[in-house]
Amino acid sequence: MRLTVAQANDLAIAAMRAIGYAQDEAFATADHLVDAALRGVTFGSLPRILAIAERFEKTGDRRTGLKIVRETPVSALLDGGDHVGYFVARRATEIAIEKAKQSGMSMVGAFNTWYTGLFAYYMEMATREGLVAFAAGNGPAIVAPEGATEARLGTNPIAFGFPALDDPVIWDIGTCAIMHGELLLHQRLGEPLPEGVAIDIKGEPTRDPAAALAGAIKAWGGHKGSGLSIVVQLLGAMCGGPVISPGMSDMAYFVLVMDPELLIGDGTFPERAAELSASIRSARPEPGRPGVRMPFDRSAAERRRRMAEGEIDVPDIVHSGLMHLVDRGRL
Amino acid sequence: MRLTVAQANDLAIAAMRAIGYAQDEAFATADHLVDAALRGVTFGSLPRILAIAERFEKTGDRRTGLKIVRETPVSALLDGGDHVGYFVARRATEIAIEKAKQSGMSMVGAFNTWYTGLFAYYMEMATREGLVAFAAGNGPAIVAPEGATEARLGTNPIAFGFPALDDPVIWDIGTCAIMHGELLLHQRLGEPLPEGVAIDIKGEPTRDPAAALAGAIKAWGGHKGSGLSIVVQLLGAMCGGPVISPGMSDMAYFVLVMDPELLIGDGTFPERAAELSASIRSARPEPGRPGVRMPFDRSAAERRRRMAEGEIDVPDIVHSGLMHLVDRGRL
Repeated sequence: MRLTVAQANDLAIAAMRAIGYAQDEAFATADHLVDAALRGVTFGSLPRILAIAERFEKTGDRRTGLKIVRETPVSALLDGGDHVGYFVARRATEIAIEKAKQSGMSMVGAFNTWYTGLFAYYMEMATREGLVAFAAGNGPAIVAPEGATEARLGTNPIAFGFPALDDPVIWDIGTCAIMHGELLLHQRLGEPLPEGVAIDIKGEPTRDPAAALAGAIKAWGGHKGSGLSIVVQLLGAMCGGPVISPGMSDMAYFVLVMDPELLIGDGTFPERAAELSASIRSARPEPGRPGVRMPFDRSAAERRRRMAEGEIDVPDIVHSGLMHLVDRGRL
Repeated sequence: MRLTVAQANDLAIAAMRAIGYAQDEAFATADHLVDAALRGVTFGSLPRILAIAERFEKTGDRRTGLKIVRETPVSALLDGGDHVGYFVARRATEIAIEKAKQSGMSMVGAFNTWYTGLFAYYMEMATREGLVAFAAGNGPAIVAPEGATEARLGTNPIAFGFPALDDPVIWDIGTCAIMHGELLLHQRLGEPLPEGVAIDIKGEPTRDPAAALAGAIKAWGGHKGSGLSIVVQLLGAMCGGPVISPGMSDMAYFVLVMDPELLIGDGTFPERAAELSASIRSARPEPGRPGVRMPFDRSAAERRRRMAEGEIDVPDIVHSGLMHLVDRGRL
């Protein structure tokens, strides 16, 4: 069904509150998930609250306070206190931005968190302030390194964000051949996986989502991409917590924020980024293709379109699931 | 012919001095190029001095002093003064290391330089000090972004280095489907290029090195890899100079150094990195493959072997070319 942006946000907050989350966690999560919906990333939007509710029911409330364990003018280490990543990574990024404004650059690590969402969201928090950012996050072992048939790596997202004159340039990828959420979506829809993205428990290539879940997802991009996933995992290891998360907990988030003014110092970075983007967009397109798209262009365009419409689609089953959580919370 | 490591180093220094480079530039370049030879990267080793000599003859001596243009406790911007990158990037990395030791982290940008070499060299400077490092460098437009048939990007290397208990983990790649030096080597040897790495001037796929040089190299890794190359180009744009280098000059080098102690703070990062490496190496290998190799393993093993032998191979034609430079310098 279609909800206005405000309705979707209110519903997400109400559902999070109903299952036992505090106001600040509910707000951070709703804002992130509605933004994902606006950008067309359905599997990473409101359905996540149903998964959060399931996790909360399974593990009970193990939350402790989110706290800064160690701090310098350019850094902080956060114990996420088993809070959901939408809340922890947002706070980590806020702290990194505050520190980068003071010192020119900063890095913040968080451990003991889970479900960190779309890293573009955090990159945009920085680019809105005219800052450049870089983030990486590890996760439980569901991806096999290149050359292996056994999982050792998370889906390991990595992102960079740069302010530009209008839309920022945000590169946000998973270092895996297929995202875990996409794999689950294929399973739900009964569709086979694309070729070459997963192996079964014996290490043989498979297109069956269930077999892939028992086996492993492949790393993206051969040995170069597998190496990048190892980089992400090591940045996570720099944030404390286990070097490989045991499951949907104890994940790490690393964010680094830089003021481009420290280097160029003449206020022209957003213009320079726009100049480079324009040059790249002007490259002669491959026959039959629309030309070069800068990273984030599609997300930004989708969000503008939905904001103009004022509405997002929420699958009926997700809507009724969320309403059920809210109603149950009222009892 | 085979030279001892000391002979190769002396010859490289003598050749650099003979063509007009100062002692410090000659030392930095020789050290880098001999290290490349030890690690088996022949095209990036002593032959480079012949290319440097050609460049020096072509452009004349346009060098000005290497100088710090802007500086804070956590950053510096260097004007490379048209000095060769082996010298400029080494100095930039030294400054970044000094600052990271003082402040916990730092970033240094350099513009107005060229030929920066193997980024693993700079990463190792940091990992030897127990520091984590990240570097990126842009270059002239010889790579087409994904979806285009016209070059807009450099070969755009990117690297990360992490200290570990014994060998560091160093991920060092070019974000292009084939390195420029490898393409030139194929041309010299009269061998066709691999499939899918280049296009001709009309944008058609080609395996002919000459046609590829007139056309463009493809970005590595489809749209994800092409996006990473754009990230590198934007980091270069943060260092001043033109957003796309006009040719073999005005290139940028960006390096960021972090003390892992800022976050984990208990001195265990090298052990944690080794623990993760051991876990990755233990993953069941694909049938018929030797198992998972950590980034930098092969380089480190090659260097150990040659150091034990005490000698490196220098192609006869390169040796006689360098001797010629030295003899001419004596006249």
